[in-house]
Amino acid sequence: MTLATRIEITLPDWVLDEVDGAPLGTDEERIALTNRLARRNFLEGTGGPFAAIVVDASTGALVSVGVNLVLGSGLSVTHAEVVALSLAQVGTGDWDLGADGARRELYVNGQPCVQCYGATMWSGVTRVVMGADGAEIERLTKFDEGPLPHDWVEQFEQRGIEVVRDVLREEALDVHREYGALVASGGVTVYNARGAGAIEKE
Amino acid sequence: MTLATRIEITLPDWVLDEVDGAPLGTDEERIALTNRLARRNFLEGTGGPFAAIVVDASTGALVSVGVNLVLGSGLSVTHAEVVALSLAQVGTGDWDLGADGARRELYVNGQPCVQCYGATMWSGVTRVVMGADGAEIERLTKFDEGPLPHDWVEQFEQRGIEVVRDVLREEALDVHREYGALVASGGVTVYNARGAGAIEKE
Repeated sequence: MTLATRIEITLPDWVLDEVDGAPLGTDEERIALTNRLARRNFLEGTGGPFAAIVVDASTGALVSVGVNLVLGSGLSVTHAEVVALSLAQVGTGDWDLGADGARRELYVNGQPCVQCYGATMWSGVTRVVMGADGAEIERLTKFDEGPLPHDWVEQFEQRGIEVVRDVLREEALDVHREYGALVASGGVTVYNARGAGAIEKE
Repeated sequence: MTLATRIEITLPDWVLDEVDGAPLGTDEERIALTNRLARRNFLEGTGGPFAAIVVDASTGALVSVGVNLVLGSGLSVTHAEVVALSLAQVGTGDWDLGADGARRELYVNGQPCVQCYGATMWSGVTRVVMGADGAEIERLTKFDEGPLPHDWVEQFEQRGIEVVRDVLREEALDVHREYGALVASGGVTVYNARGAGAIEKE
């Protein structure tokens, strides 16, 4: 029996350098940081143009940072939200980021895909703030974001998770446009694109 | 800057012992193994009543094993499917389990939640075989499985992923019934249940 029994995921060194000293007082500043991280991530070759941070709503302190690490880690699950939420749970020592009444918020430069929609739902965060919309990301980058339920915002809210959309939307889209141009020129791998172009979106 | 930068997930030792020598020739035998693993998982206290395996469709060889490790790892993302798919990718060294025409199949003792639905979609598997249905799991265990899109099976199939449901359904439900009884007696933690009882299912 020689099956793998261990999964290890490590944030690249450049991520905390990029975060160091960034102003994080407002929703816009926090999304601006995810935009910068997302852009650097595809330029560094670590993964797709996606980044996320978790912030403590009470103190404004940064709890964790994640970038998309699919190419770097070799694990398809390592989208930015999964990395940020998991590192937040490593840091707090609890699988529930909302334990004991804590209010922690996820910021992400684009609307979560269906996997990360679910990962966010189970993480214990109480607020999700996002930049670009999923349909725009698909159009610009050729990524498949998967089918969210039609009432995905309401489903979040029913579980006590506030949703804020379109924060610094144009700046977020600029990152996806730049990535899309690189894809068109053959400069990067869109790692979930097998047949995705053929999917009819509702 | 003292943020966490590393995520580590380790399969408990008992998992490979349970797998060793198990017959895996048929869909039923494979689901039977996930049922046994799921039952032992909650009895061991490692996580919820969920287990998954990945099998190579061409050779019938076992590629990886996963169990729900939320309680053991402290990470809400570590559902059985995420653990099995990630360990399969560690083993094969590729984020795409369908690379180079490979056909790898995910077996799970219950219908995936919305997070694992997405994780399966991006993993590269070409077939998903499941035991109990999501609505039945929610009724028996009080877990919240989240909102799948109404056409979730068709969305899998559009992406080249065959779906097989209700394999050893009653045996799968027995495990969830036993777990549900333990929950009712206060013997275990249902780890995503904050308000889940209040969610109106469609």
